[in-house]
Parts: sequence; C-alpha cells; structure tokens
Amino acid sequence: MQTIEELQEIAIQIIENQNYLSEPKSLYEPIEYAMSQGGKRIRPLLALMASDLFCGDIEKAKPSAIAIEILHNFTLLHDDIMDESPIRRGMPTVYKKYNKNTAILSGDTMFAKAILFLIKSDKNHIPALVETLTKASIEVCEGQAYDMDFEKRNDVKIEEYIKMITLKTGVLLGSALKLGAITANASQKDIDYLYDFGINIGIAFQLQDDILDCWSNLEDFGKVTGTDIADNKKTFLYLKSLELASKEQKEVLLHYFSSTNFDKDEKEKAVKEIYEALNLRLIAKDLMQKYNSLALENLEKIGIDSQKKTNLTNFANKLMHRNK
Amino acid sequence: MQTIEELQEIAIQIIENQNYLSEPKSLYEPIEYAMSQGGKRIRPLLALMASDLFCGDIEKAKPSAIAIEILHNFTLLHDDIMDESPIRRGMPTVYKKYNKNTAILSGDTMFAKAILFLIKSDKNHIPALVETLTKASIEVCEGQAYDMDFEKRNDVKIEEYIKMITLKTGVLLGSALKLGAITANASQKDIDYLYDFGINIGIAFQLQDDILDCWSNLEDFGKVTGTDIADNKKTFLYLKSLELASKEQKEVLLHYFSSTNFDKDEKEKAVKEIYEALNLRLIAKDLMQKYNSLALENLEKIGIDSQKKTNLTNFANKLMHRNK
Repeated sequence: MQTIEELQEIAIQIIENQNYLSEPKSLYEPIEYAMSQGGKRIRPLLALMASDLFCGDIEKAKPSAIAIEILHNFTLLHDDIMDESPIRRGMPTVYKKYNKNTAILSGDTMFAKAILFLIKSDKNHIPALVETLTKASIEVCEGQAYDMDFEKRNDVKIEEYIKMITLKTGVLLGSALKLGAITANASQKDIDYLYDFGINIGIAFQLQDDILDCWSNLEDFGKVTGTDIADNKKTFLYLKSLELASKEQKEVLLHYFSSTNFDKDEKEKAVKEIYEALNLRLIAKDLMQKYNSLALENLEKIGIDSQKKTNLTNFANKLMHRNK
Repeated sequence: MQTIEELQEIAIQIIENQNYLSEPKSLYEPIEYAMSQGGKRIRPLLALMASDLFCGDIEKAKPSAIAIEILHNFTLLHDDIMDESPIRRGMPTVYKKYNKNTAILSGDTMFAKAILFLIKSDKNHIPALVETLTKASIEVCEGQAYDMDFEKRNDVKIEEYIKMITLKTGVLLGSALKLGAITANASQKDIDYLYDFGINIGIAFQLQDDILDCWSNLEDFGKVTGTDIADNKKTFLYLKSLELASKEQKEVLLHYFSSTNFDKDEKEKAVKEIYEALNLRLIAKDLMQKYNSLALENLEKIGIDSQKKTNLTNFANKLMHRNK
C-alpha cells in the first residue's frame, strides 16, 4: 500500500514526464500545451489507487493512467470548442490559443494516442482495457450531446440531468478505477463495485462543480464562473429551483433562461438571488452527500480488508470539500 | 477464394446492415446519415480481400472491415469541417446538414465505435488490430495537419507532398489490408508487403483524386471540383508545374496561389491553362503508374500462389481507371 500523496506524485510524474512533441509541430504543440496545464490528475490517480487497492503492480497500471488522462484532455479540447469556453485552469483553451481546426485535429490525435498507450499493457488485459476506454469515450460523447440538447429544451427532468452527468463525468472516473483494477486482476464483481463507486463520486463531483460555477470566482476556480447561468445550462440548481419556486420566481427563472442575450451580470444576480432564497446551495450539498454515501457503500462491498480502502474513502471525502 | 464482386457485395452489406442509431438522436442520426451515403467501401473491401488472400475466415475479418470504414468516415466528418467542404458523394456534408459541433461530437463517437468493433475479433488478434487502427488514425491526423500547413507554405517539395498523401490516404488503405491479413494469421513479412502495396495504391489513388479535382465535374465526381486550385492546395500538379514553368507561367501561378480571394472560375481557368500547356495531366498519370507498379511489385513478393493475387491486381489496375 502506498499513501495517497505518493500515488498522486506518481500520477503527476508519469503525465508530466511524457514527451508529447513530434512532427508536425502544428499538430503536436497544442497537445503538449494541453497536457502541461497541470490540473488535478484525478483520473490517473484513481487508476493507480485502484491497482494499489488490489495489490497490483503499479507499473502495470501506468499505461492506463496515462491513457485516461490523455483521453480526458481530448474531451476537454473538443468540449471547449462546443461550449465556447475561453479559459481552463486559468489559461486560454486550445481552440482560443490556436484555432478550432487545430483543437479538432489535435484532439483526435490525443484520442488515438490514449488508446495506443493501452497497447503497452499486459497482452491478456488489452481487450478489456480497450473496451473499457472506448465505451467510456462513447458515453462521454453521449453525455455531451445530452448537455447540448438540454440547453434547447425546457422540460428537462432532474433524473435526466443526473443521467447526463453520470455519462459526462461519472463514467470517466468509474472507468479510471476499472482500468486500474483490471491491470491488478481484480474479480469482475469487485471491478463492478469499484466502477459504481467511481460513478457516484463523479455525480457528486459534478454537483460540486455546479455549485462552484455559481458561488466561486475565476481566481479560485480557474475557469470563468457564472457560465452555467449565462448559457442556460439546466443544472441541478436550476431544475430543482423550478420545482421549489413560487409563481413569481418561476416566471423570473423562465424569463432569464429563455435566451442567452441578457446582460450576464444582471442575469446572474437575479438567478442567484432566487437560488439563495430557495436554499439551493444547501439542497445541492445534501444531494452531493447522498451520492458520496452511495459511493462509500459501493466501496464497502468490495471483498478486501477495509483498511486498504482508506485511500479511496479519504479521496471521496476530500472531493466533497474542494473549492476548485 | 471469392470473386471481387462477391467480396464487394459482402463489404457493402456489412456496412449497410449495421444499426448506427441509438440515443441521443442528436448524436447518432448524423452517424447514420454519414454511414448511409454509399461510397465505394474500398477500405472494408480491402480488409476482406486481404483475409481472402491468405485463406482466412471472412467472418473473422468483418469487425475490422466495419471498423476501418467507420474510422474513415469519422475522418471525413472532421476533415470536411476543417476544409469547409459543403458536399460529399453529392450530398451535404454532416457539418453543413447539421452543424460543426454535431460533426465534431458525432465524429468522435464514430472513432470510438470503430475501435470498439475490433473487440469482437479473436482475442489474440485484438492487440495488433487496435495498434494498427490507432497508429493509422494518428498518421491520418498528421497527414491532415501537413495538408493544412502546406496551404500556408510556399516552399513545399514534391517529396513532402508524397509523404503527406501517404499519411492522409495511403496509410488507411495499407491498414485496411493489414487488419484483414492479421485476422487471417498471415506472416509478419507478408503483412508488411501487403501494407506497402496498400500505401502505394493509396498514393496512386490520391494522385488520381488530384487529377479528377482538376479535370472532372461535380456530377461525375460527387464532390465540388476545382477546390484544390481555389484553396491553394499544393498538389502534385501545382508543385510539378512550378518546376516546369517558364518565368512568366511561374509568376501567374505564384500570383494566383498567393490568396484565396480570387474569382474561383477565373483562377481555375488561368491555372488549368498552364497545367495543360505543361502537359501536367500526363505527367501525373505517369507518376500514378509508377506507384501502381511499385504496388504490384510489393504484391509479387508475398509468398503465395500468384493466382490468388488476381483480385488485388485487378483492384489496383481498376483504381487507375476510375472517374470518381
């Protein structure tokens, strides 16, 4: 067993020690730029923690750890084009720094590189690893498609929102753990429990993201905040507020979420006032807590000594208290 | 051994009998649209021919055949955004029919689906198949990046152009054959010869494409023609014409290739006049013939009865005489 700090250090090292540069530079420099922006490296850390949980050889989990981080960053390159997000981790996004075509093509290359990394794994693990990563990619795309659809719909249900964030965020955390567990030869049952643990912390993570987008600031969060409200994103905050709102509050919400042409500050102020009057921050935190508890129940079911699970328990609890 | 017509029929059937639809529709309908546009299905046919060449079980090559066709169509979705191509196979391209974000995201999903298809192959073949397909994807992206770079450069050499079309076109044809050969348990040496055969017919194929873009029309070709000249593409025709041009002709070429703001018809007429005066069509056809001969030499070296190679020989020769 290694400490979470040791594993975190390994996760950072293996991502940052990779050479992403090659020819042509127009294709690979944006990849190097994207991969060197830091970030929490949560997904490779999860892959390594999963391997460590089942006493696997960390070396064997490394290709998976690198693969899932490259894959995650590929989805960011393309999502940032689609969402027109100018800033990520406090820096210009790839499509802003270069251009859209570059972000498309460098993103595609990252996707292929991610899968190619898996080929460095043990031969007998490769089919399951490739299947896990490609299925996860498809589900992330489905989540992004639902997310974009929801911007245009006025009848999104909370359960649909939870499904969307499961696909868009949960699946990649669950899959990071699954990849690590596969390389450690864990049983199918344990892999499934661990995957569900990841799904549930992913949902909690995204709810936290929604809260931070609403009640944080650029400096702390590293991203422009208030974008969910500006872009009419049907987050849990919005959907739940519609359920709880008075007739007047509902009218204000529907009014402001009918267009993206409002003054951003005015709209944000009006919507946040309602969210706060309805105690939405606390309600969202309670829901986060519920998914956190579900995650810990999944972890509980894994058939190994509970002391070995400390890293993942601590990780899940730490995620509840992040501010970026 | 099956006839090329039988294999062609199987190739068409396996692509057209797939169900590409799923939820959300916004993600999958564009995939269904892209995959049902017909097209020559050359890549799946090559995968099946390669399997047949080595007396493989065609069933085992089918996942690879489907995978490479989906992958090819994914690259078209993204290339058409980058190249702003409005029409393909006589129909609006995906980004024109839907929008850019849809073409990005549906393309990404197709890429993942392509790799996922390979998982249906024999377990012991999966690592080599996945490696082949992902390496090919990376090289296709590199080719596209060089292609876009060349539009801005004035010092492109013919050998650089050949490298670019090798990456952008040759690699996928070579890889289609390689995938099929892997599923038929061909020897590494034979796989390499067959791959080189594919690379060389790919180069010949692209040279033919350049000729057709210049001297064909929308109705026959299924694509808008004259786009290479309009977009300042540094094709073989252009690069070779610069080598052969008189001082005056060179000035005209450089003038017209210095901007994309000229009247399309006027520019096309002026450039084509020079190409024709310099006999470029014949020179390009000779080069095509050279690569066709190289391809046939590669085929020759494969250690099996030459009668079995008839399908591929005929295929290579037929490619030389296509008009779309």
